[in-house]
Amino acid sequence: MSQLLYEGKAKKMFTTDDPDVLRVEYKNDATAFNGKKKAVFPGKGKLNNAICTKIFHVLKENNLPTHFIEKISETEQLVKAVDIVPIEVVVRNIVAGSLAKRLGLDEGTDLGQTIVEFYYKSDELGDPMINDDHALATKIATEEELAEIRRQALSVNEVLQALFAEAGILLVDFKLEFGKLKSNGGIVLADEISPDTCRLWDKETHEKLDKDVFRRNIADLPETYEKLLSRLEAVK
Amino acid sequence: MSQLLYEGKAKKMFTTDDPDVLRVEYKNDATAFNGKKKAVFPGKGKLNNAICTKIFHVLKENNLPTHFIEKISETEQLVKAVDIVPIEVVVRNIVAGSLAKRLGLDEGTDLGQTIVEFYYKSDELGDPMINDDHALATKIATEEELAEIRRQALSVNEVLQALFAEAGILLVDFKLEFGKLKSNGGIVLADEISPDTCRLWDKETHEKLDKDVFRRNIADLPETYEKLLSRLEAVK
Repeated sequence: MSQLLYEGKAKKMFTTDDPDVLRVEYKNDATAFNGKKKAVFPGKGKLNNAICTKIFHVLKENNLPTHFIEKISETEQLVKAVDIVPIEVVVRNIVAGSLAKRLGLDEGTDLGQTIVEFYYKSDELGDPMINDDHALATKIATEEELAEIRRQALSVNEVLQALFAEAGILLVDFKLEFGKLKSNGGIVLADEISPDTCRLWDKETHEKLDKDVFRRNIADLPETYEKLLSRLEAVK
Repeated sequence: MSQLLYEGKAKKMFTTDDPDVLRVEYKNDATAFNGKKKAVFPGKGKLNNAICTKIFHVLKENNLPTHFIEKISETEQLVKAVDIVPIEVVVRNIVAGSLAKRLGLDEGTDLGQTIVEFYYKSDELGDPMINDDHALATKIATEEELAEIRRQALSVNEVLQALFAEAGILLVDFKLEFGKLKSNGGIVLADEISPDTCRLWDKETHEKLDKDVFRRNIADLPETYEKLLSRLEAVK
């Protein structure tokens, strides 16, 4: 028996016979600007599943805990069931997007240090930026959980910067979500890491290899994601 | 020789013969909504100078470092010269204003713990909220300075909560600015603490005793500030 648990913009989550295991199905939908821009790209789900699987494998090799179990079909993964911590964690190495606006900095500026931002996951409130005190006062997370999330986010950043560097790609910024394992409450990386959730630029040309090609009508999305996947697969 | 160094919305700052000392003159102007709403209230400068002086005296008695030296006339103070750290520090005990919007909480909700927020002082950028990483990456402040500012802000909150409690008043939230002393670089509380920069509610009736009476056209500003001053002066 498999039940649809949740349908998001780019994924569906289904139950499995094991209450600790869920099945994720990657959709072909792309959305931007909080769902105001929408399109369907045949092949997108397959590409994101492949890219995300590659990334979760590399994180596993580096002993970072994630919800990922295995890829079971072209568009599907099995993952561990978690309670999602309602915080979008944004990790930034290079100025782009909302940070350029917030601080009045030029896109492409190397930050010289990593910036971690927390946003409260709430469609109703427009995912507002929050600080640790906001998270604690609203009981979204404990101090220990916030510290653990930040620690893991920075480790993921280190591992992925190295992975993408080998593919000649700059990891500009990315969004993570964390969850507490239904089985034991441990905090693990959940959701996905894909060109939908990262900004990735060619190291030399700064060509965009992520969803910004769709947001900004720069290039064909499946072609771009295909290019990214090939470059990642070429990494040893 | 006294030169106008700076004119803000509610104060002017002048040099004195001593390069480590400035003269502050409290104006009668009131502004709200980033200067979009303006008015002049005869007597306001005198009231804010008196209230701020009382508060800085209480902070001094509690060994908290501030830029305040002394009140020298009805509308003037002498203060130590500082380089202002370009961060507006907002301390919150009860939900009001922008926090109600950010987190979707009801005004008046007791937070159960203090929230400290940092905003980058930039008219051009609209004073955006920032976190510690933003401050460090843009070199607005060092990690040690941020920790010291947070520590002092929380101490100021404790002292002022107690002071206002004695006057039957809730310290809902307030804005602080800190500076580095020109003389030795030490971080001290600067700017002002007044009903222009605090939300203060009567403990029983929740009657507003601060600039919100002007922002929201609730009551006469000088009458309100006069009431606040009398209640503070009645405290031993």
